[in-house]
Amino acid sequence: MTAKPTIADVARAAGVSKGLVSFALNDRPGVAPGTKQRILEVAAELGWRPSVQGRSLSTRLAYSIGLVIARDADLVAAEPFYPPFLAGAERVLVAAGRTLTLSVLGPERDEEAHYRALAADRRVDGVIVGDLRPEDPRLDLLAELGLPAVTLGRTGDPRFPAVLLDDAAGVVATARHLVELGHRRIALVAGPRDLVHGARRADAFRAALAESGLAPAAVIETDFTPLAAATATRGLLDADPPTAIVYGNDVAAAAGISVIRERGLDVPRDVAICGFDDAELARWTVPALTSVTTDPARWGAAAATALLDLLAGEQVEDIDLGPARLVVRSSTGPAPAGQDAPQRDPR
Amino acid sequence: MTAKPTIADVARAAGVSKGLVSFALNDRPGVAPGTKQRILEVAAELGWRPSVQGRSLSTRLAYSIGLVIARDADLVAAEPFYPPFLAGAERVLVAAGRTLTLSVLGPERDEEAHYRALAADRRVDGVIVGDLRPEDPRLDLLAELGLPAVTLGRTGDPRFPAVLLDDAAGVVATARHLVELGHRRIALVAGPRDLVHGARRADAFRAALAESGLAPAAVIETDFTPLAAATATRGLLDADPPTAIVYGNDVAAAAGISVIRERGLDVPRDVAICGFDDAELARWTVPALTSVTTDPARWGAAAATALLDLLAGEQVEDIDLGPARLVVRSSTGPAPAGQDAPQRDPR
Repeated sequence: MTAKPTIADVARAAGVSKGLVSFALNDRPGVAPGTKQRILEVAAELGWRPSVQGRSLSTRLAYSIGLVIARDADLVAAEPFYPPFLAGAERVLVAAGRTLTLSVLGPERDEEAHYRALAADRRVDGVIVGDLRPEDPRLDLLAELGLPAVTLGRTGDPRFPAVLLDDAAGVVATARHLVELGHRRIALVAGPRDLVHGARRADAFRAALAESGLAPAAVIETDFTPLAAATATRGLLDADPPTAIVYGNDVAAAAGISVIRERGLDVPRDVAICGFDDAELARWTVPALTSVTTDPARWGAAAATALLDLLAGEQVEDIDLGPARLVVRSSTGPAPAGQDAPQRDPR
Repeated sequence: MTAKPTIADVARAAGVSKGLVSFALNDRPGVAPGTKQRILEVAAELGWRPSVQGRSLSTRLAYSIGLVIARDADLVAAEPFYPPFLAGAERVLVAAGRTLTLSVLGPERDEEAHYRALAADRRVDGVIVGDLRPEDPRLDLLAELGLPAVTLGRTGDPRFPAVLLDDAAGVVATARHLVELGHRRIALVAGPRDLVHGARRADAFRAALAESGLAPAAVIETDFTPLAAATATRGLLDADPPTAIVYGNDVAAAAGISVIRERGLDVPRDVAICGFDDAELARWTVPALTSVTTDPARWGAAAATALLDLLAGEQVEDIDLGPARLVVRSSTGPAPAGQDAPQRDPR
C-alpha cells in the first residue's frame, strides 16, 4: 500500500469499525484489550500516522467539540436557527460519546482570546465555525492553534472543510414566486450585512428581481430580531407600502404579520409575507408562513459528522447539502388588484 | 476566626475580588505572581480549605459546566424555554471564563453512564440539573460522583442548592384570570406528568379551579410539542369545546390558535387561549398571547451563578426567583355569551 493509510484502512484490515479504531488509537476505555492490541498492530503494520488535519489523535482528547457564537446572547436566544442546528449536532455527538462545548460571546468579548483558551486548555478537540465573515480572521487563528475545524459555508480556504447549503437558491426561489404572483414592489427585511450569508442573500435577492427588470422596493438591514423586524415593517407601511415583504427569518416574519394586522391590513391580501428557515413556528402562524427550508438540523448533523471524521484522521471533503427549498404556505398570494402586471421578458 | 473561612473571607483579608481568589487557588493563568503569592499566604493563614460542596477546587478544572437534557433532540429544539435559559447561563459563564457543556440524550441513551463519563474524564466541573423527576435518581448518582450540582426546582435534598421559581403561582393566576372573565369550561393542554413541573402545574390548575367550585373541562397530557398541542386542540373542539384553553408553553398555544382559526372560530371571542413561558413569540402571535413570565434567562443566569459560587468554595443557599407572573395580552377575553356565570363563593 503506497497511499497514506487512513482509519478506514486500519478498520478494514483489522475487521472492526472505524469508531473502534479511533477509540483504540485514542486510548479510550471501552475497547477489549485483545481487540485493542490487534488494532494497534494492524495500524503499525500499515504505517498509520495521525493526519495533520486530525492531529488531536496524538494528544489527550477533550471528548467535546466547540461552537463559539459571537453574537449577543439575546440575539442567539431569538434566532430560530440554533435550536434545530444544535439538536442535529447533538444527535451525532451523543452517539459518538462526545458533547458540545457552547460559548456565546457578546460583542464586548475577545473572540481570539476565547479560541486560544479553548485550545490551550484542550477544552475542545475541534470547532464548528459559523457566521463567516469576509476574509474571516478566525481561519488563520485556528490554523495557528492547530484546532481542527469545519466551517458552515465555504470560505475558499482549503485548510477547512465546509458544510454548504445554497441559501441564495432559496432567496431566488422566493423572489421568483412573488414575481409570478404579480408583485412588483417587494421589500427585503434582511439580516446584518457584515455576515457572509446576510450579504449573499441580499445580493441574490437583487439579482433575482433584476431578472424580471425589477429592483427591491427597499432593503432594510436589521439585527435579525423580531423587534427590529417590527420597526422595519412599520417604516415600510408608513411610506409607500410594498405588496410583499421577505424577512430574514421566520420569527421576524411573524412580527411582520403582527404589525400588518395591527394596521388593519390582511396577509396575504394586502401584503404577502415570506419567512426564512422554515422553523416549527412557520406552520403555526396565522396565516401559515411561506418560508425557505434550510434544514438546520441536517446542517448541524453534517457539520458534527464532518468534524468527527476529521478528528478520526479521515480526509474530509466539502459537504454540499444542496439548494434551500421554497415551501409555499398561506402567507403569500396574488398581488393586490390595481398593481401593474410585472414586466415580462418578451421572448 | 473560628468559623470555617470562605473564599469571601480570603478575598476580604487579601483585599482582592472573590474571582481573583478562586483563580489563584485554582492555579489559573491571569493572576499576577505577587498577587497570587499574597492570596495563597492569606488563605494558608486563615486555614482555608476547599469545602466538600466545592471539592473540584482540589483537582484540575474543566472550565466548563454541564447541562444534560434527557429529552429527544427534536423536543428540545421545539421548546422555547431553552434558548433564553442557555443565553442567561452563557452570559454568566463567559464572564467567568467558563463554557457550557451541553448534552442532549434521547430517550434511548443511558443517562447514568453519561454523567459517569463526564465525571470520570473531568469534562465538567459541575452540572445544572433540570427536568426534575419525583425521587430523582440523579441526585444520589451526583453525590456518589462528587459532582457539584444546582437543581432547577427544589428537590428537598439538602446536598444540592436549588434555583426556584414558583411556576404554580403563574398557573393559579391564569386560572383565576379566566374564571374572572366568566369562563367555566377551561381545559389544560399540559406537558408530561412524569416531570415534576408538569405534575405540579396540573395540580395547581386543578386546585385553582376548585377554589371557584370548578373542575377542568379536560387535562390532556402532551410531550410539549406544537404538533401534539394541535392534535389535542382538535380533540377538544370535536367534543364539547371548552371556552378557554391553557397550554404548557407558548409555541403550543400558537399551534392552538392556528387550529381554532382553521375551524373558523375566533380567539378570544369563541375560545380564550393562554400560553406559558412568555417567549419572544408570545408578543408576535395574532392575537398576542396572554402568558406567564417565567423569565428563563434570569433562571439560567441564577443557576450558573449559584454553581460558580459552589465551585469557588462558597456555601450556597437556595435561590428563590419568586412567583411566575401572568402577562395579559389579547388572546384572552370574556367568556362567550350564553355561558353561565361562574359559581362564586357567597362569602
